[in-house]
Amino acid sequence: MTVRIGVIGTGMIGEEHSRRITQQLTGGEIVAVSDVNVEQASTVVDRLKLDAKVYESGLELIKADNVDAVLVTSWGPTHEEYVLAAIAAGKSVFCEKPLATTAEGCRHIIDAEIEAGRRLVQVGFMRRFDSGYKLMKEAIDTNRLGEPLMVHAAHRNPEVPERYVTPMAIHDTLIHELDTFRWLLDDDYASAQVIFPRKTRHAHSKVEDPQMILLETTQGVRIDVEVFVNCQYGYDIQCDVVGEDGIARLPEPQSLIFRQAGQRYNEILQDWKKRFGEAFDVELQAFIDGAAAGEICGPSSWDGYAAAIASDACVKAQESGQIEAIEMPERPAFYG
Amino acid sequence: MTVRIGVIGTGMIGEEHSRRITQQLTGGEIVAVSDVNVEQASTVVDRLKLDAKVYESGLELIKADNVDAVLVTSWGPTHEEYVLAAIAAGKSVFCEKPLATTAEGCRHIIDAEIEAGRRLVQVGFMRRFDSGYKLMKEAIDTNRLGEPLMVHAAHRNPEVPERYVTPMAIHDTLIHELDTFRWLLDDDYASAQVIFPRKTRHAHSKVEDPQMILLETTQGVRIDVEVFVNCQYGYDIQCDVVGEDGIARLPEPQSLIFRQAGQRYNEILQDWKKRFGEAFDVELQAFIDGAAAGEICGPSSWDGYAAAIASDACVKAQESGQIEAIEMPERPAFYG
Amino acid sequence: MTVRIGVIGTGMIGEEHSRRITQQLTGGEIVAVSDVNVEQASTVVDRLKLDAKVYESGLELIKADNVDAVLVTSWGPTHEEYVLAAIAAGKSVFCEKPLATTAEGCRHIIDAEIEAGRRLVQVGFMRRFDSGYKLMKEAIDTNRLGEPLMVHAAHRNPEVPERYVTPMAIHDTLIHELDTFRWLLDDDYASAQVIFPRKTRHAHSKVEDPQMILLETTQGVRIDVEVFVNCQYGYDIQCDVVGEDGIARLPEPQSLIFRQAGQRYNEILQDWKKRFGEAFDVELQAFIDGAAAGEICGPSSWDGYAAAIASDACVKAQESGQIEAIEMPERPAFYG
Amino acid sequence: MTVRIGVIGTGMIGEEHSRRITQQLTGGEIVAVSDVNVEQASTVVDRLKLDAKVYESGLELIKADNVDAVLVTSWGPTHEEYVLAAIAAGKSVFCEKPLATTAEGCRHIIDAEIEAGRRLVQVGFMRRFDSGYKLMKEAIDTNRLGEPLMVHAAHRNPEVPERYVTPMAIHDTLIHELDTFRWLLDDDYASAQVIFPRKTRHAHSKVEDPQMILLETTQGVRIDVEVFVNCQYGYDIQCDVVGEDGIARLPEPQSLIFRQAGQRYNEILQDWKKRFGEAFDVELQAFIDGAAAGEICGPSSWDGYAAAIASDACVKAQESGQIEAIEMPERPAFYG
Repeated sequence: MTVRIGVIGTGMIGEEHSRRITQQLTGGEIVAVSDVNVEQASTVVDRLKLDAKVYESGLELIKADNVDAVLVTSWGPTHEEYVLAAIAAGKSVFCEKPLATTAEGCRHIIDAEIEAGRRLVQVGFMRRFDSGYKLMKEAIDTNRLGEPLMVHAAHRNPEVPERYVTPMAIHDTLIHELDTFRWLLDDDYASAQVIFPRKTRHAHSKVEDPQMILLETTQGVRIDVEVFVNCQYGYDIQCDVVGEDGIARLPEPQSLIFRQAGQRYNEILQDWKKRFGEAFDVELQAFIDGAAAGEICGPSSWDGYAAAIASDACVKAQESGQIEAIEMPERPAFYG
Repeated sequence: MTVRIGVIGTGMIGEEHSRRITQQLTGGEIVAVSDVNVEQASTVVDRLKLDAKVYESGLELIKADNVDAVLVTSWGPTHEEYVLAAIAAGKSVFCEKPLATTAEGCRHIIDAEIEAGRRLVQVGFMRRFDSGYKLMKEAIDTNRLGEPLMVHAAHRNPEVPERYVTPMAIHDTLIHELDTFRWLLDDDYASAQVIFPRKTRHAHSKVEDPQMILLETTQGVRIDVEVFVNCQYGYDIQCDVVGEDGIARLPEPQSLIFRQAGQRYNEILQDWKKRFGEAFDVELQAFIDGAAAGEICGPSSWDGYAAAIASDACVKAQESGQIEAIEMPERPAFYG
Repeated sequence: MTVRIGVIGTGMIGEEHSRRITQQLTGGEIVAVSDVNVEQASTVVDRLKLDAKVYESGLELIKADNVDAVLVTSWGPTHEEYVLAAIAAGKSVFCEKPLATTAEGCRHIIDAEIEAGRRLVQVGFMRRFDSGYKLMKEAIDTNRLGEPLMVHAAHRNPEVPERYVTPMAIHDTLIHELDTFRWLLDDDYASAQVIFPRKTRHAHSKVEDPQMILLETTQGVRIDVEVFVNCQYGYDIQCDVVGEDGIARLPEPQSLIFRQAGQRYNEILQDWKKRFGEAFDVELQAFIDGAAAGEICGPSSWDGYAAAIASDACVKAQESGQIEAIEMPERPAFYG
Repeated sequence: MTVRIGVIGTGMIGEEHSRRITQQLTGGEIVAVSDVNVEQASTVVDRLKLDAKVYESGLELIKADNVDAVLVTSWGPTHEEYVLAAIAAGKSVFCEKPLATTAEGCRHIIDAEIEAGRRLVQVGFMRRFDSGYKLMKEAIDTNRLGEPLMVHAAHRNPEVPERYVTPMAIHDTLIHELDTFRWLLDDDYASAQVIFPRKTRHAHSKVEDPQMILLETTQGVRIDVEVFVNCQYGYDIQCDVVGEDGIARLPEPQSLIFRQAGQRYNEILQDWKKRFGEAFDVELQAFIDGAAAGEICGPSSWDGYAAAIASDACVKAQESGQIEAIEMPERPAFYG
C-alpha cells in the first residue's frame, strides 16, 4: 500500500522532503501540494515531475479524499491550524518544528490528539534518526556509561542572515538540542540559564553570538550548550555525554583524511542539510511506514510541547540573565 | 513503474538482497525466486512475506513473463549460465561476484552482451557505491592529490572458516580491491606479485595468512595490499592513496568515541555486511533504477572480466613466487 | 656556575623535584634539605645519593651560606613563612602551589618582593611549561583564532582519597586552570559560578563530584570547566579555546594507536605526574637558569595572588550557589 | 664528573649537538673542536660561547689529554678513520651515521673495538631514543601484539636538493628504518627488493622518487617502506606493526587540533630536526652518561655494520630490480 501524501508549504524544506519521498524513499507518493504562493507550488510539482494536484489552501488539501497523510512544512505560525485540521480529519501528519509557536498552541494539539484516541502527529526532530545520536542513545540506554551526569554540547553554524535575532538562537537553533537531550536522557528540564560571552565581530548587530545555555534536568544532569551561529568555519554539532563510568562523544561526519600542504585535515561540512541528510531520510521513511501501519511513532506532540516549554524558559533566561525554572505538566498516560 | 525482480539463489546474500529490495529500496519488487534447495527458497518467501513464485530452475525463472530483471546470487560456478540466459532473454541482470569462475567465462558474457547491443549486466562490486570510496574517487578525479603514485591498502577479517584456503585470499577477498583500484585509478594492471609473511598462529593449516599482494598498473602506480583474514580484532578496510600533491585516507566507519577504563577508543566492526550495508543499498537501488530506465550502469561485464584476469595472475603469483605479468585485451568500444 | 639549591619539604613532590634536578636537569645541585620529618629527609638524601646537608628547620636552611636558591615543597600552610624568609635572605625561591593559603598571605609576599626590588619568587604552575599549552598560547597570541570568546575545559582524575573534600576541587584541582586561563588569555577574572550536577556514585560522601565552574573574564570571555575527580577512566586534561575565527584543542598526550580485540584505542594516562612530567622538567630548569642569571621569570607572586583571589571566589560560589564577583586589585608596575 | 668532549666536524649537525650538550644536557662540556674548515670551527666556538680549543686536525683533537670523549660529525667518508683513532686512544666515541661508508670499513671498526676489549662506539641512530618508537618497542617486547608479522612504514620529506640521487634514498633516508626495524623486531634482514612507482613530477631528474622497499627478516617478518622525499606536504614518519593479536601505530607528533576555515586539522612538521629533537637530546645524554660510566650503550658498531650490509643490498636491489639476499655474518659474542 502506497501512502498518498499532501505537502503544505513547498519552500526549501517542503521541496526537499517531497524530493526524498519521490526519489529516495519507499511506500509514499506526493499526490497534493499547496503553498501560500500557488505558483511556487506548481513550480515544485514541475521540477520534481510529481503527479500531484496543486491546492489553493492547505485546509482543502487536508480534506482531499486521496490524501492519506499530510506534511506540514509551511511557515511556523500556520503549523497549529494545519495540524489540528489533520487530526480532525483523522489523518497522519508530519509537522516540521515548531509544532506550534506557543506552548499553549502545542497543548491544543495534544488535547485534540488525545481526543482522537490515537497518535497521528510526528514532529520533525530529525536528530533522533541520526545514526550517531542513535549510537549515543544506545550507549546510555544499555548503561555503558553508568548514570549520565553532564552533557557538553555545541551547535555551530558558519553564519546566519540579518533576520536572525537573539531569541532565534533558542527557537531555531537550540530547539534541536532541547528535544535531543530529553530523548537521550529520558528526562525533563528543571531550569535554564543563558550566558552571553563576548560577542564575535562576525555577528550582526541584532544577535548576541555566541551564547551558552545551561540546562538542568529533573534528575540533576547538567548540560552546557554552546550556540555559535557565526563561527565561520563550518556546520558543526558536538555532543559529549559524561557518565559515572565513562564518556562518549558523538562521531564526526565521515570524511577523507588528507595529508597535504603541511596539514593533516578533514573537511568540515558547511550545510546542515548535508549533516542530517541521512537522518531526514530515515525520519520521513518512519513517518511513511507509521502512516501506512496506522501507528505513528517518533517525536510526538508531547515532545513538541516539552520543547516549546523549554524554549520559552530559555528565551526568558536570555532576557532576565537569571536561572529560570522549567515546569513540565504531568505527562498524560496517552504519551507514556 | 515497478521493476519485477527474480532472485536466483536464496542463500544468505540472496535473502539479504531480497530483504533490502522489499523493505528498504524503492521501485523494485521480488516476484520470483529459485534455489537449488527449493525448500529454502520457500522459507525465504515466507520469512520476507514476499508475493513471489518459487521456481524449480533458475533458467525457468529467467524466462518468466512477469520477471523484468534478474538477481544472480547463487553458487559462483552457476553464474555464467544464468547471466548468459538473462542476456539471451534481454533482461537486466545483477550478478554477485564472480561474474564467472574463469576469465574465459567472463569473455562469453561480454561477447553475448555486445551482441545484445546494450548493457544488461551489473556486477556486484559494491565498494564503488560506498560513501568513503566515492569521496576518494572524487578526490582523485578532481586532481586534488596530483597524479596517484601509490596505494597502500589492507583487507582484514577477524577470522575465516576451515574451507577458506590460500587462493581464496585472491578470489574471495582481494577480488574487491582488484575491482576497486581499477575504478579508483581509472587504470589497468600490468603485473602482480604475492609475498607470504610469517604465518599467524591463528590461521588454519590450509591457508597462508597474512599475504601481501603487490600490483603495478599500466601507468606505473604501485599498490600494496595486506590481506589478513585471521587478524582477530575486526573487519577492517584501509586505503591510502599517495599522490604527487598529497595523500588521502579512507574514512573509518562512524562510531562513538569512548573514554573509559583507561582507554580512548572506538569500536571496530566485526562484520563486512555491516561495513558495506549502505553500499549494498545504493548498489541495488542503482540496479533497480537502471533496469527501470533500460540503462544499466555500475560495474560492467568488462569490469568482471578484468577482475578475473587480475585474479588469475595473482593466484599464479601465489604459486610461482614471481612477478607475473597481467595483460588485458583491448577494451571494446562498447564498454568505453 | 652551578646553582646550589636547598629543598624544604621532602615529601613526594619534593623528592621528585630533587631527583629531576640531580639526574635530569643541568646547572643545579641539591646541597641542603629539610623536612618536618627529619628522618624522611635523610632517607631522600640517601635514596638520591645527594651530597646534601639535612637541616632541622627550613628557616636555618634558607640562611645557609652555601644555599643559593630554595625550593618550597612543604605543607601548604608553611609556604608563606618560607617564601618570606627566602625573600628576606635575597634568595631565589621556587614555591609549589599555593603560594600562601590566603590571598592576604600572598599579598605579604608581594609586598616583600617589591620591597626587595627584584623578582625572587617563581610559583609552581607547571602547565605554563607544558608543550601543548605553549602551542595554545602561541595560537592565541599570534591571533590565529581571532579574539577568544569561550573556553571549554575539563580536569579529570581517576579517583581521590577520603580526605579530598568539596572545596579542594577548587584549591587543589581547579587552581591550575585558574592560573592557566589568566595566562593563556592575558586577562583577569570578573566572576565565578559553581554548579553541582548529579553526583557520581563513585564519590565519597564529603565531596560533591563532579562540579562545573563557570568563569567570566574582564574581557567577557566565558569559561566552563568540568572538575571530575572520580571519573574512573584516567587523568585527563582537556581545553578548547573558541575564537572568532576558529577553535583550537589541546593535544592528547602521545600514545600508540592500537587495533585490537574489536577496538581502535589509545591508552589514557592515569597519573598527573606522568601527564606533566616534561612540564616539570622545563619549569625547574627555568627556575635554575633564572636563579643563575638573577632573573626569575615564569609564574610570579602576582600570579599566585590572582589565583588565590579567584579560588576564594569559587569557594564562595560553591557555598552560595550564586554568581560571585571577582575583583582584582590593580597590578603593581613591578609585575608589568 | 664532567665528560670533556671533542667535536670533529662543526657543520650543521655538529653545531647542533654542541649546542645541546652545552645548553640542554647535563654532565658534558665541549672542550675541543675541529673542522676541515678551521674558520668555521672558530665561528661555532664563538657563537656557542664555548671554552674550547680549535684543532687543525681531528686526529690531534682525539689525542688531546683533556678530551675524554669524541663526537664524529664530519663528512661521512672521514668517519672510519676518526672512529678507529678514538678506539686506539681508548676514548668513547659517538659517530653520526654512517659508521663507515662501506661494510668493510665498519668491520675494521668492529675488529678494533673487540680488540680494545670494551664498547667505545655509539652510532647516531636517534630513533631508538624517540618516545614513540620506545612505546612501540615496549609493546612488541611485552608481546602485546603477539608475534610481529608485518611492518608498514613511510619516510617522507617535503623535498630534497639536486645533489640527492637515487641511492641516497637508501644511504641517507632508509638507513634509519634499516636500523630501527632490526632493533624493534630484534631480528636481522634476509632479503631486499626495491620497486619504483611512477615518478612524481616534483622530483629532480637524478632521483627516482618515490621508492618502495620490501624487506624480509630472518623470522619471516615482511616490511614495506615507502620512501618519498619530495612529498611536498611535510616531514612524516609512519610505522604500523601488524602482529598476530593486534596492530600498533606510531603516534603523530603532538600538535593542536584546529577547526578553522572548513577544516579540522593538525599541522604536520616540516623539519626532521624538530621531529626528532627530543630523541637527539636523549641520545646524546645517553652517550655522555655512558662515557662518564665507561659503559657505552645504545646502537653499537655491530648495528652500524648491519645497517651498512642491508644498505648495500638495497642499493644492489635498486640496480638489479631483483630480490637480493642479505647475509649477516655471525654476531660476535662481544655484541651479545
